[in-house]
Amino acid sequence: MSSADLGLLSPMRGAGEATGDRAVLRAMLEAEVALARIQAPAEAVAAVERACAELDVGVAELAELARSGGNPVIPLVERLRGAAGEHARWVHAGATSQDILDTALMLVARRVLGQILADLDIVIAGLTRLARAHRDTPMAARTLTQQAVPTTFGLKAVGWRELAIGARRRLAALDPPAQLGGPAGTLDPALCAAFARELGLAVPLLPWHVLRAPVADLAGALAFTCGALGKLAADVLVLSRGEIGELSEGAGGGSSSMPHKHNPVRAVMIAAAARQLPALAAILYGSLAAEDERPPGAWHAEWQPLREALRLGAGAARDAAELVSDLRVHPGRMRGNLSVPGSTGAAADLVTRALEETP
Amino acid sequence: MSSADLGLLSPMRGAGEATGDRAVLRAMLEAEVALARIQAPAEAVAAVERACAELDVGVAELAELARSGGNPVIPLVERLRGAAGEHARWVHAGATSQDILDTALMLVARRVLGQILADLDIVIAGLTRLARAHRDTPMAARTLTQQAVPTTFGLKAVGWRELAIGARRRLAALDPPAQLGGPAGTLDPALCAAFARELGLAVPLLPWHVLRAPVADLAGALAFTCGALGKLAADVLVLSRGEIGELSEGAGGGSSSMPHKHNPVRAVMIAAAARQLPALAAILYGSLAAEDERPPGAWHAEWQPLREALRLGAGAARDAAELVSDLRVHPGRMRGNLSVPGSTGAAADLVTRALEETP
Amino acid sequence: MSSADLGLLSPMRGAGEATGDRAVLRAMLEAEVALARIQAPAEAVAAVERACAELDVGVAELAELARSGGNPVIPLVERLRGAAGEHARWVHAGATSQDILDTALMLVARRVLGQILADLDIVIAGLTRLARAHRDTPMAARTLTQQAVPTTFGLKAVGWRELAIGARRRLAALDPPAQLGGPAGTLDPALCAAFARELGLAVPLLPWHVLRAPVADLAGALAFTCGALGKLAADVLVLSRGEIGELSEGAGGGSSSMPHKHNPVRAVMIAAAARQLPALAAILYGSLAAEDERPPGAWHAEWQPLREALRLGAGAARDAAELVSDLRVHPGRMRGNLSVPGSTGAAADLVTRALEETP
Amino acid sequence: MSSADLGLLSPMRGAGEATGDRAVLRAMLEAEVALARIQAPAEAVAAVERACAELDVGVAELAELARSGGNPVIPLVERLRGAAGEHARWVHAGATSQDILDTALMLVARRVLGQILADLDIVIAGLTRLARAHRDTPMAARTLTQQAVPTTFGLKAVGWRELAIGARRRLAALDPPAQLGGPAGTLDPALCAAFARELGLAVPLLPWHVLRAPVADLAGALAFTCGALGKLAADVLVLSRGEIGELSEGAGGGSSSMPHKHNPVRAVMIAAAARQLPALAAILYGSLAAEDERPPGAWHAEWQPLREALRLGAGAARDAAELVSDLRVHPGRMRGNLSVPGSTGAAADLVTRALEETP
Repeated sequence: MSSADLGLLSPMRGAGEATGDRAVLRAMLEAEVALARIQAPAEAVAAVERACAELDVGVAELAELARSGGNPVIPLVERLRGAAGEHARWVHAGATSQDILDTALMLVARRVLGQILADLDIVIAGLTRLARAHRDTPMAARTLTQQAVPTTFGLKAVGWRELAIGARRRLAALDPPAQLGGPAGTLDPALCAAFARELGLAVPLLPWHVLRAPVADLAGALAFTCGALGKLAADVLVLSRGEIGELSEGAGGGSSSMPHKHNPVRAVMIAAAARQLPALAAILYGSLAAEDERPPGAWHAEWQPLREALRLGAGAARDAAELVSDLRVHPGRMRGNLSVPGSTGAAADLVTRALEETP
Repeated sequence: MSSADLGLLSPMRGAGEATGDRAVLRAMLEAEVALARIQAPAEAVAAVERACAELDVGVAELAELARSGGNPVIPLVERLRGAAGEHARWVHAGATSQDILDTALMLVARRVLGQILADLDIVIAGLTRLARAHRDTPMAARTLTQQAVPTTFGLKAVGWRELAIGARRRLAALDPPAQLGGPAGTLDPALCAAFARELGLAVPLLPWHVLRAPVADLAGALAFTCGALGKLAADVLVLSRGEIGELSEGAGGGSSSMPHKHNPVRAVMIAAAARQLPALAAILYGSLAAEDERPPGAWHAEWQPLREALRLGAGAARDAAELVSDLRVHPGRMRGNLSVPGSTGAAADLVTRALEETP
Repeated sequence: MSSADLGLLSPMRGAGEATGDRAVLRAMLEAEVALARIQAPAEAVAAVERACAELDVGVAELAELARSGGNPVIPLVERLRGAAGEHARWVHAGATSQDILDTALMLVARRVLGQILADLDIVIAGLTRLARAHRDTPMAARTLTQQAVPTTFGLKAVGWRELAIGARRRLAALDPPAQLGGPAGTLDPALCAAFARELGLAVPLLPWHVLRAPVADLAGALAFTCGALGKLAADVLVLSRGEIGELSEGAGGGSSSMPHKHNPVRAVMIAAAARQLPALAAILYGSLAAEDERPPGAWHAEWQPLREALRLGAGAARDAAELVSDLRVHPGRMRGNLSVPGSTGAAADLVTRALEETP
Repeated sequence: MSSADLGLLSPMRGAGEATGDRAVLRAMLEAEVALARIQAPAEAVAAVERACAELDVGVAELAELARSGGNPVIPLVERLRGAAGEHARWVHAGATSQDILDTALMLVARRVLGQILADLDIVIAGLTRLARAHRDTPMAARTLTQQAVPTTFGLKAVGWRELAIGARRRLAALDPPAQLGGPAGTLDPALCAAFARELGLAVPLLPWHVLRAPVADLAGALAFTCGALGKLAADVLVLSRGEIGELSEGAGGGSSSMPHKHNPVRAVMIAAAARQLPALAAILYGSLAAEDERPPGAWHAEWQPLREALRLGAGAARDAAELVSDLRVHPGRMRGNLSVPGSTGAAADLVTRALEETP
């Protein structure tokens, strides 16, 4: 158990409950139950349900047992078959390990996506308020670190909002599919369709054991989301520097050595997530080029990066929701800092247009 | 000129003409001309057009001049203003360097996307033929390098086809926008709309100097495309191994030391591209988190990776078009290699369904 | 607790015990105790030791508390001060959060490095045996998937060995330093030296809060190690394909659907690690460019990728040790597969020389 | 020729002359000449030298010809053999394409490394001066964007210097080897040793066609270097913000729209390089896991990223040399900005110690 990652090195809230190993194991059990329901006789279904409900193996033990075959489904199925007694042949019937693990991760993804979308709604609502309230609040535009002619804070806020809306749109377009292709990907597609419906997942046109579009699309949308929120965070970090002081986080974080400090902690955490997602997405995009009907490595390399991408995406969305909801704007400092004269041009108009276009 | 990258280390055809420095410079000049056309009096437009047509600075010299200000637009505008004489104030009027460079890169991107789409059409047509012809041709499915129960070559080909169609869909959904926001991103949006129409680019809702969705989406779609074609290449590489011999490239490449060799060169080049795109995309996704109204580094870091991603994407699509058009299939070897008995299950049905679903 | 990562999605043994959150927390407590020992009066030291030994906060709770300040040291110090009573001021005296967390991660790194080195010794010994035994065993060299003139298996094995020795050398050169600079990195270096000695860590020349060479060097050495072992795994995967059959894993993994299969599971797991390390290293190298005396994001972005890189590095080394110790070589198949005539050239000599050079 | 990359999108000086395609071609010719010299009769050597000196194929044409075989050596050797007449068999004798291309890239690397080291010497000398001059100049330390207790500018400068020295050490430790193994890597090592000596490159223990330590080490050292210089750039960017104003670049860059601006352009260019290197290094580390005696893709994927990493590394070093040589320090603003009281602790002592330790 000392091997556990309980979040100590990832101080974001977000999606702990939804992405942890227990959640993944629960999702694997849901998949096994659904598999029985779509094809087994009632009695066997009951036996499989019972075996899953009463599973007597802990996550850590299962993780250990997963080593010899290289995936956790193999020992899980062994246990379930042992528990299902005479109905053992209805456990995992027709499926391959990848069917269960891919389906489980898509169940996890769908749940986390729901959380992220809800948090992005809070972010968007907060930014709508800020953009409206500060449509005309002048502040310095800054390019290559130097002041340019003025803009308004409303235009900055509506830009953050556009990115958040873009992230929301890209995430909402995802529709994680079930996986059920059997050992060679040649299983009757009617079975897969029934399986998907039972679990509330999308029905894929083909088994996607080695057609990894669903994973690549998750990677792209999560990288976009963390980058989009990372833009907001990057601006908050610059503008809450003591010497600038145009924004500050409502809560702010303390320090173990300097109690006077008021650190922009939510922005820091979002920025940290935005630095990790592109690399995690690179691993996942890299797994598209997967040889054969199950590749020796490319699939296995997806599991942790996908989980971590979901955890960071959800953490960043949660942190952004808190950050935006409680952001302090200091129009006096904005005005006071202005050192390059000029009009704010079409800034206010751009805000109005953007708010009308995507209300 | 010894500094030139003329493609020696990137032996793909693809998009040389469209992505080189001369093409980028031409696109910058197109942007400057369009800018004059939408706002200057006729005489001034003519002067700007003339200055652009007769530009007397070479690319290499411009590249050198670009150093002091950190971008090539500054010295270009100086030259154009010098040449425009009394109409100098209509050169680059209202614009900032980023307007011109971002717009130029989007012009380049749009052209390259057109080439890639055309090549993907060839790929898809070729794979449609292969899938149809080999719907029932049995071959070994292979998982974790070992033979599993049989599949058909048609199912493999239709899977490649699904990925290629997916790449096509993602690329076709891109609509590169013009950029015209002026120094602080506060320029009248009507100007930007006219500018975009003049150039045939999309009209953005807001200046996207630091709202880099268009670049991130290009990154994601190109990484998807190279990964999708990389799956095809990975399979061709395995199946054309001498000991397997189920596929071979029609042309095949020679060797400087072993004339007997028949190397799967097109697949090798696609595989090489697929190994590079995820990292290039990571740089581009990383630039979403851009502080201020123009970031000190994140924007500049995009230029070469974006160009290289376009070049590799186009090269991979071209190579895939050639590869698929001339792929030799060896059903006898496929049958001969089969070592695990079993039926091909629903393989043929899956092919038929996929071909019907996306004709 | 459902948020825990207990290794379910990372079925490697390796460094679970050494890299988990509990191990990190223990290392943080070791750092706090050492800090007291080097400066506090005996009674206070005892009080701090007691507070650490009897810490009444679980890892999951601490992870949750870490959110508000963005790092786990802040709530940990609060608890320890509460427990230390009148000696509270000797808890964390002079230190900043980063001192404790960086030091803890270096303690973890040093322990994991020790494990990896031990496993690499097994790998190297095993490869020495294989290279010696098969110095003259002819087999096909393969380039771009096609057979070239012959080589010997000994030459292949001695190449793997050179890479493993190179990995060992790069890892053994690392000497993780303690961190003790205080809030601004201006603490008396004598204190840091005493702290480092107390913990058995290296004494840094300067506080490295934002001089991240130690982390970058870990990144590079671990990426090298996983890539080096990844070469071995890539070859094992090719050569244990059924149609080639020149190597096989002694143990081999089963399948949840096809009991006949004998999968090269250890090689698969190493290959999966080798696909992840470069991206994790990219995050860590990216954190070198850290502004100020503590950057808002770049430091925080290191924690999980560093831990994961250590976990994967240790897992790959463990898997390679098992793989090499039990690798089955099939000289008959090697001979039988040879299809291009020719001599094995200097292959055997190269083996002898390499074994003599680095015995 | 519109396909040429002449540096327009990479406005750094650095290593243009040394990394361009013409330089690579020259290095390939040097390798072919050396190969003749170590084994051919005098007359044949003269013929090969003449063929190389009078090569009648342009780089762009060669690039085009490179396509069919997937590397530029194949058509180059064809031309050289044509020109060598009766001595044709002494052209490329015993070598494989990879021998020539790897050797050429190592020749290029060695030359670029020399340039980078020379520029780092300028950086280090400049930072030594700054550290000494400002050992006691108080300024705010900043953590998580907020002022902490004071430090001195000398301590900041000596930290940059430590990183630059570290980069220098890592680069100077590289010793690029020649490559000469023949088609299967089984060539007589005495030939390779003579070849290496002829070219002034290191003699490798084994052919490294698929033992890519030299490339991985270049990747790591260049990523370290750009990150190290990126730390300097990141600080300059923060401290030259108008509202902080503690540093400014001597030259500074202009703007195409705002003549008043004084942009920290050298720091911007370094920051842009630092954002790209980790991803390029990830591609190169990823190529360690290369199957067979020549991998179908992993080797080809190295060429452009390695060249680009060298170009960016040299560009960043050049820019850093200029930046440091002409950096304006504003101690008055440093003092004026101080808002948190406190002593500068051991800052000055740390500077002295560091300067003594590594003079």
